[in-house]
Formats: sequence, C-alpha cells, structure tokens
Amino acid sequence: MSSQKNITRETIIRKGAELIHLHGFHSTGLQDILTSAGIPKGSFYFYFKNKEDFGLAVIDYITVFVKSGFEKFLNDENIDPIARLEKLISFFEAVYKKNNYRLGCPLGNLSLELADDSEKFREKLNFSIESIVGVIEKFLRNAKQAGSIDQDIDTHEASNFIFHGFEGAVLHMKVMKNGEPLKLFRNYLFNYLQISSADKSRNKGA
Amino acid sequence: MSSQKNITRETIIRKGAELIHLHGFHSTGLQDILTSAGIPKGSFYFYFKNKEDFGLAVIDYITVFVKSGFEKFLNDENIDPIARLEKLISFFEAVYKKNNYRLGCPLGNLSLELADDSEKFREKLNFSIESIVGVIEKFLRNAKQAGSIDQDIDTHEASNFIFHGFEGAVLHMKVMKNGEPLKLFRNYLFNYLQISSADKSRNKGA
Repeated sequence: MSSQKNITRETIIRKGAELIHLHGFHSTGLQDILTSAGIPKGSFYFYFKNKEDFGLAVIDYITVFVKSGFEKFLNDENIDPIARLEKLISFFEAVYKKNNYRLGCPLGNLSLELADDSEKFREKLNFSIESIVGVIEKFLRNAKQAGSIDQDIDTHEASNFIFHGFEGAVLHMKVMKNGEPLKLFRNYLFNYLQISSADKSRNKGA
Repeated sequence: MSSQKNITRETIIRKGAELIHLHGFHSTGLQDILTSAGIPKGSFYFYFKNKEDFGLAVIDYITVFVKSGFEKFLNDENIDPIARLEKLISFFEAVYKKNNYRLGCPLGNLSLELADDSEKFREKLNFSIESIVGVIEKFLRNAKQAGSIDQDIDTHEASNFIFHGFEGAVLHMKVMKNGEPLKLFRNYLFNYLQISSADKSRNKGA
C-alpha cells in the first residue's frame, strides 16, 4: 500500500469514527464519510473491502485511542495510583461535560450496536474491551502492591467492576444529560476500593 | 379509541419491541413490524403519528415489562432481601443464557441508540431508568432496615451502582457471548453490599 493511500485510509477512518460516534454505525452512510474526509465520492471500495471491513478498522482506531488514554493516566508514575484514577475520571467528566453529555463511550455504543451483527465485529469488540480491562487490571495490581488499595481486592473482579460501572454510568449520563451518574460512579468506586476520595483530600490538606 | 384498535395497537408495539430488540430501532422497518404483527401493510399511521411516537410507546411497554419483573423478585416478602436479589440475578442469567447471550437489555440498547436522537426519547428513557432505579432503591432501603445489608450503604448510590454495574455487565456479556461478566457482577455486587453469597450458602448448610 502506498504511503498516500495509507494516509487517505487513515483520514477516512478518523472522519468515519467521528460520524459513527455521532450517529451510530448503521446510520452513517459511506458517502457521508467520504464527503467528511474530502475524498472523491465512490472511492470507498478502493480503501475497504466492504462496510464491515471499514467498521473493524474503526474499532481498531478507537481501541488504540481509548487504550492509550487509559495508559497515559494510569501509568503516570509521578503521582500515586489513587490520584491517577481520580485524574482519569476527572478527564472523562470534563470531556463528557464539554460534549453536553452526548455521544457517550464509542466502544460501548458499538458493542451494543454490533456485537450481534457478525462474529468478526464481536471478536474485534471483545479484544478491544479485554485490552482496556487488561490495562485497568495491571494498574490495580500495581496499586495493590503499592498498598494504595484494599489488599483483599480481587484485581480481575475489580477491573471488570470498573469497566462495567463506567460503561453503565456513561449510558445513564447519556440519558440524564448531566454529570450525576459519573459523580456517583466516582463515589461508589472509591468506596469499593475502600479509599475515600474525600478523606484523602482532607488528609492532603492536613 | 375502539377496543379493537387498542388491541391492534398493543400487538404492533409488542411485535415491534421484539424486532427492535433484535435489530435496533433505526434498523427496524415499519413494514417489517406490521408484517410481524399480521397487520395490513401501510396501516402504521392509523395507529401512530410517526415512528418516534411508536418508539415512545415501545419504551413505555418495555419499562412496564422490566419494572414489573424487578418488582416481582425484589418485593417477594416470602424470602429475605438478599435471596431476592440472588433470584433476580439468576433469572437474568438464565434468560440471557437461553438467548445465547445475544440481544442484551432492551432499555440499555435504546438508551445508547436514542438518547441523543430527540428530547422526547431522552425524557422517556430517563423516566424509564429512574423508575427502575427507584424500585432498586426502595428494595435497598427495606433490606437495610431489615439488617440484610451493610448499614453504611448509601441506598441512592447503591441503587445506581447496581443499575450501572448490571448494564455494563450485560454490555460486556453481549460482546463476550458467555455468562462470565454477569458472574463477576454477582461477585462484586455482594462484596459491595458486604454480604458474601458463598458465606451465606455455607451458613444455610450449617
């Protein structure tokens, strides 16, 4: 594949991911994606075998984006593990607030829309979620080792708990159109990990 | 509205809800719904102003269905609160297993698909979720009063926690196509409520 073809393909994926985040996969037309990417109409099949092939590339693109975001915050060794988790949640709260609590999590949206559509979609989404839950689990193992969370925490269970609670809270947020579900998520998460954010802030100030 | 018209309308809603659960709202055609309901083609607008009006009626129908299911289990005063919660989760595990872990939660699916579509959809979905979270919260207040859960549990926070964790676990299940996420949900839920299912079973046997 020529370099120019690669760049054009990546532009279509990036612009397509934006439109899919707005409208969903099935409601996003191929021509709308090409128009948004500034690519001549009708050239979609020059870059992708079919719409599923394109959808799989979009899921890969989103996965790298989301996973690197999680890693950026959770692997930041300059601050203690709990502060990293707080910064990650604050980051999501700010992003969702900026979007007026619309759109939600691109992977969550595509999971519910596409998991039953084809085995290829399901496998790709499963790999995507597993890799993100894996980043959380690795973080929790380190946090446990550092004594930052309850030593009885099962890191496999807790990493799934965080992923499920977050996806559920974002779903609820999309319907409520305010930050309350994410605030509740923050509260019960730190309660679950047996570290109270509020207590911690007070200790910092003491 | 005549009684026959009411019955026909309800048939369309019921059959429509089934198709939407399978394919999503936007991917379900009006004619497919009428065909499935055995109603003459083209008569959709005799029963509904537009597709949104129909969608709102479907959300109402699903809400009554889901809410009454939650109430049936959680208000069963013949057994103790924790056993009710366990029976509710076991019920969902059995239903999802029977469906080969496809479809997922109809309200979760429609929340992610429609919350940004129109203010009417958003309000209806918000009311729906609030009423189900309300059933859980009422149950938790009673469970707390009965001494069945940790007395420090914030029932508002915990009812949201249960809803979020459940929706996230069902999303994960739909992608994994096995019961593992619901099993994890069960574990961290009872851990959060500070009641170990396993310990409880052992105590029963003792």
